[in-house]
This record gives sequence, C-alpha cells and structure tokens, in this order.
Amino acid sequence: MFKYDIIAKEGRARAGIFHTPHGDLQTPVFSPVGTQATVKTLTPEHLKELGASLVLSNTYHLYLRPGDEVVAEMGGLHQFMQWPNPMLTDSGGFQVFSLAKTRKIDADGVTFKSHIDGSTHRFTPEKSISIQENLGADIIMAFDECSDPNDQAYSKLAMERTHRWAERSLNAHTRPDQALFGIVQGGINPDLRAESAAFISSLPFTGIAIGGLSVGETKEEMHNALDIVTPLLPEHKPRYLMGVGTPEDLINGIARGVDIFDCVLPTRLARHNAAFSSTGRLNLMNANFKRDSQPIDANCQCYTCRTFTRAYIRHLIVAREFLAGTLISIHNLYALVNLVKDIRISIIDGTFESKVPEWLQTWQGNAARTATKAHS
Amino acid sequence: MFKYDIIAKEGRARAGIFHTPHGDLQTPVFSPVGTQATVKTLTPEHLKELGASLVLSNTYHLYLRPGDEVVAEMGGLHQFMQWPNPMLTDSGGFQVFSLAKTRKIDADGVTFKSHIDGSTHRFTPEKSISIQENLGADIIMAFDECSDPNDQAYSKLAMERTHRWAERSLNAHTRPDQALFGIVQGGINPDLRAESAAFISSLPFTGIAIGGLSVGETKEEMHNALDIVTPLLPEHKPRYLMGVGTPEDLINGIARGVDIFDCVLPTRLARHNAAFSSTGRLNLMNANFKRDSQPIDANCQCYTCRTFTRAYIRHLIVAREFLAGTLISIHNLYALVNLVKDIRISIIDGTFESKVPEWLQTWQGNAARTATKAHS
Repeated sequence: MFKYDIIAKEGRARAGIFHTPHGDLQTPVFSPVGTQATVKTLTPEHLKELGASLVLSNTYHLYLRPGDEVVAEMGGLHQFMQWPNPMLTDSGGFQVFSLAKTRKIDADGVTFKSHIDGSTHRFTPEKSISIQENLGADIIMAFDECSDPNDQAYSKLAMERTHRWAERSLNAHTRPDQALFGIVQGGINPDLRAESAAFISSLPFTGIAIGGLSVGETKEEMHNALDIVTPLLPEHKPRYLMGVGTPEDLINGIARGVDIFDCVLPTRLARHNAAFSSTGRLNLMNANFKRDSQPIDANCQCYTCRTFTRAYIRHLIVAREFLAGTLISIHNLYALVNLVKDIRISIIDGTFESKVPEWLQTWQGNAARTATKAHS
Repeated sequence: MFKYDIIAKEGRARAGIFHTPHGDLQTPVFSPVGTQATVKTLTPEHLKELGASLVLSNTYHLYLRPGDEVVAEMGGLHQFMQWPNPMLTDSGGFQVFSLAKTRKIDADGVTFKSHIDGSTHRFTPEKSISIQENLGADIIMAFDECSDPNDQAYSKLAMERTHRWAERSLNAHTRPDQALFGIVQGGINPDLRAESAAFISSLPFTGIAIGGLSVGETKEEMHNALDIVTPLLPEHKPRYLMGVGTPEDLINGIARGVDIFDCVLPTRLARHNAAFSSTGRLNLMNANFKRDSQPIDANCQCYTCRTFTRAYIRHLIVAREFLAGTLISIHNLYALVNLVKDIRISIIDGTFESKVPEWLQTWQGNAARTATKAHS
C-alpha cells in the first residue's frame, strides 16, 4: 500500500514518489500545518489552489479537542476536515513537552496537564498510536521524547526512551493503510545522533523522521546533525525533517537528503503580517505600503499576488480584517510549497546543485528574525 | 448608462434588471456588506461562488481608513478590493449618527469625531459625494440624516434637512458612471413619510432609497412605512431599502415593491456562530452538534453545506479557528442571496404571492433574537 520510488538523485538530494492510500506524494514536499484539523484561515480549496499535497495535523490538539473518537465517528480526519489528499499526524510527543502545562515522564509514558483546561491526561506509545489510528492519517509517527539539545545527559536519556517507545509503537500499530515512521533523536551530540539513526533504521518502519531539530540549536548544529544522520538511513525509505522550516532550511535540508518537511512558519508569520518575498521578508503593516500598487512579490504567481496590491493588504491589516491573514497565508504557503516543487524539478533536471547558491541568496533574507521553535 | 427594466410584476412585487457600468443587476437583489472594502473573512471568489452580484461598502469607514484618496489612487473601490461586479456605497450619514464618538449637526452638514482615534472631521452633502466619487461605486447615495423613529419632532427636522441635502447632493454629483439615489426619511410618521416620498420622487435621482427603517421600530411600523412610501415612488426607478434585513424582512419588503436590500446580519451572525436554516436559526456552538454529521442545513446547496458537517464547524468554533466564521458567513450569505433569487423567479413565474406564506413559515424562526440595528 505504501511504496517509495526514487526517480532522480543529485548529490544527496532525492526526487521521489511516495505512494499513499490518498494519492501519490511527489517528494521533496513541504506540508502546511493544520494543527486543529484546519490550516488556519484557509479552506481546503485554498490549499488545493496553492498547490499543497500533504497536510499535517496534531495528535495532541485533536485528542484534547474535539477528541480522536469524535473524529473517528465522523469518518476520520480526511473526511472531518475534507482534505482528500495525503495527511500526516505527529505523535503528540513534541506538544506534550512544549505546550502542556506540566508533565511527568517515566519509562512507560508521560502524564501531563492540558494547556486548555489543566485536566490530567496520559500518553504512552500505545495511546499515541491508538489516537493516530482513530484520526486515520496516511503517515503516522512513533511516540518520541524531544530533548533540550543543549542538555547532553538528558538527550541520551530521551533518545533511549524514544528507542523503547519506537519498538512499542511498532507493536501497537495495526492499520495497514497507515505508514508508521520512526523518529531519530539524539540532540546535537554526533554520537547519539549516529546511534539513534542506526537503531531506528534497524526497525521495520515505513519511513524515518528526524526529530529534535529546529528547537533552539544553531543552523550549523542542524546541518551537522543532518550530515551525520541521513547517510545512515536506508535509501528507499522517505525521510521527514519535523517542524522545519525557513526557505533556507528547506534548501539545506533537501541538499542533505531530506524528502518531507512541515512548519507552521508560513501561517504564523501571516498572522503577524509578515510575508516571504524574493527580495526579503516584508512587514506588510509598514506605512510605506499605504499607496503601493504592487503585489507582495512581483515574482510570485499565487492567488494573492495575482489579485491584490500591497496597499489593499496593508489596509486590511490596519482595519483588523481577518482576510489579511488569509491572503498572506496563501502567499507564504505558496512560496514554500512551490520553492520545494521547483527544487524537485531541478533535481530531476540535474541542475539543483548549480542553483543552490542563487536560491539561498534569494531566500536568505526571509530567514532573519525567525522564531525557530515553530512546531505547532 | 443606467437603465432599469421591469420584466415582471406580481401585486406590488417587481422583478427587473438594473443596468450598471459593472454589469446587470437582476432585481430583487440582496447585497452583502463589505464595510471596510471586504466582506468580512471572505475573498471575492467566495462571494462569486455564493452568487452575490452587488456588494456594498461604507463611505464613513473608507474615508477614515485607508482614505478615499488612497482608494482613488489605487484605481477605485472595484479595483482596490477586486470586486469586478456592481458596487454601492452609502453616504456615510448613518454611520456618522450611529458610530462616530460625538457629532454636531447644523444646516450645512455634520462635524464629528472618528470612532477610531477621536479625530475631528466634517461631512457635508458635497463632501459625501466627493468621497463617493473617489470610491467610484456604481450606485451612490445622497447625504441624509437618519432620525430616531420615536422622536417625531426630530424626524420632521431631519427629514427637512435630508431634503435640502438631497438637492445639494444632486448638484454636487458629477460622474455619469455613478447612479445617485435619493433617500426617503420621515421616521414612522405616515404624513412625513408621504411628504418625503413625494419630494424625493420629484428630484432627478436615478433610484430611490428608503432610509431610517430597521433602526428600532416594530415590524408593523416598518411595513406601514413601506405601504405608504412605495406606492408614491416612480415606477421605473429602482428602490433600495437600506440596512434590511432578516429573511422575513426581505420577503415582506419585496411584497411591498422593494428591489434592493443590504444587511450585515448574515456576516455578523456568523461571527457569533449563528446560522440561518430552513428549520430556524442554529447556534453552532451548541454541544448537541459535537457528533452531528449533517450539514448546517440539509436543504442548502452552499459550499459550506455541500462540504462540511455541523460537527466540524462546531469544532472550529470551540477551537477558536477563524475558518468557522468564513464557513458560516458563506452559508448565511448564500441563504439570503438565494432566497431573493428564488423570489425573483417566482415573481417572473407569477407564483410569488402563493409562496409567501410558506417562505414566511420556513424563515420566520430565523428572525427571532435579531439585533435590528444592523447597518454597519
């Protein structure tokens, strides 16, 4: 039911097709994040029109609200949110560690208090898989523990727990129409990363995720971790770099052999009036745009740029009209989804490596001032 | 450039075509309100898809923000908000009286303080027309004074001032591609309403608006005012009942010879999680909908009802996702726009009067709990 075909390679960069029950994913691919079963302010039609193929949703959030059993009763997540194409759910691990009010971790799992109402809940690998089976995404994640990258002792403990939980997640997994991915942890310690990559690769997962990056480490540390991990991964399994990232991160990640990305950055920036552009990031509330009849980015072909001026979008922001967030989200998502599509074409054409310097130069202005803890 | 053809009549109800520079309006017609150059949370594509033909925007709001001169520089309102079809602007009169922080009225005009920043501004008939010429809608309004319907002495004074301002608005009007409508006032006093209808009808306006209703009077008082006014109006000018209203009000207004309506009710209700339905108004946050796999209204063909369940929309509301407002706005606007389209067909078929009782019965449950002061 799941099959990953690599159709072209250039250096470590790969272009492939991941076959899923809800259609083929052309990789590399950037996935918009629909935390609460909706990519904020957008309809599924907007997502299709901007070229999205994969959508991520969050196990932690949907377990708490509306409840994974409600989603299952409504026919699963695809049906509930009317996204007919491939979907991915995370394991809830990251959110338990980053969002929950309090948490107590033991060898068996995590007890935590909801960030919504303070109620107490418990996640184990088995519970995470059970929730994800109720949600019904095509790609699901083993339950993992994300550590502070600067705490080496904790990174080792968290990695070891993640490995036990990976085995238990595999044992708990029952639905053949869901591809279970294991997660490589190990913080920024090269030995731990190598150990984790080897261990997770040894298990019968359909794909491999790389977790615990873009959580406060430097860009160099992220690149080093990828340089250690991806060469150790099985060639014919898709690789997913969780919660990453900026346009620059996507280019660098693909160059290091990553196939799948997700990040809240495009929609979160949109809610703060910031837009990616080929001339650097723009704050669209800027008074300079009051009478600016240009689109956000003259080089962009998205609905927003084909249709509206900066002056109009600035007016919507100043007048506190929610349509501003919708229009900027469409633009920002289009920018990343289509950057990755262009990169895919270049890998197939064999021109990727020659284009990397130009892409990095075009997009690096957008990476500045980025909150990197942008997972949910 | 403007021509109004009546193509069918049944009793006092009329079906017509109002030719404008941005296309033909099939009347009767319900206009969504785009107060600040956007129908809240919707793209122009949503509006086209739900069947809207006319969109209203507010002179008072756009004068204050972003400024009518900015809109003019950006090519006018159609271009600015990318609505290629007919548009209407009000005169700003109603908002000066209902929204501005303070106001001082004299024979020449009104001095008021902005509800946004308290800054002082002055509207006169000439200024209102000048702003509306900068905005560039197809249908524009004479500057008027809307009185408290229960204050008879003030109603008379306001009506007389409205009549002087109507003449001055006509004199100030220069753009042949804009149809100027005069406004009948007179509160709920039958003699004043008749006097105002006769006076405004005597002037060379392209169409006639009926103002000062749906501002706190009873339904019976509104119907009585319409029963006095519409028989006194010229047959071959379009008639616009400003700021009205509920589905019931539309049915009753059309039966009394009204051609054009606008109201913020559909979008305002949507922001409060309330939806029109053929079984009465629904509060979609209601816990009963948590596992309800039906659409908002099984009899509705809008995008929202064709696509999403009540359970999903309730989830979006509870999770505070803005998409809820978008989806309910689409539904509520579709309901009114298409109710009026169905009524138009029935007038052409000669079945309107026979269907009124059924329509009123279907829709009256939606009129309950309505804030009637719903102009902006």
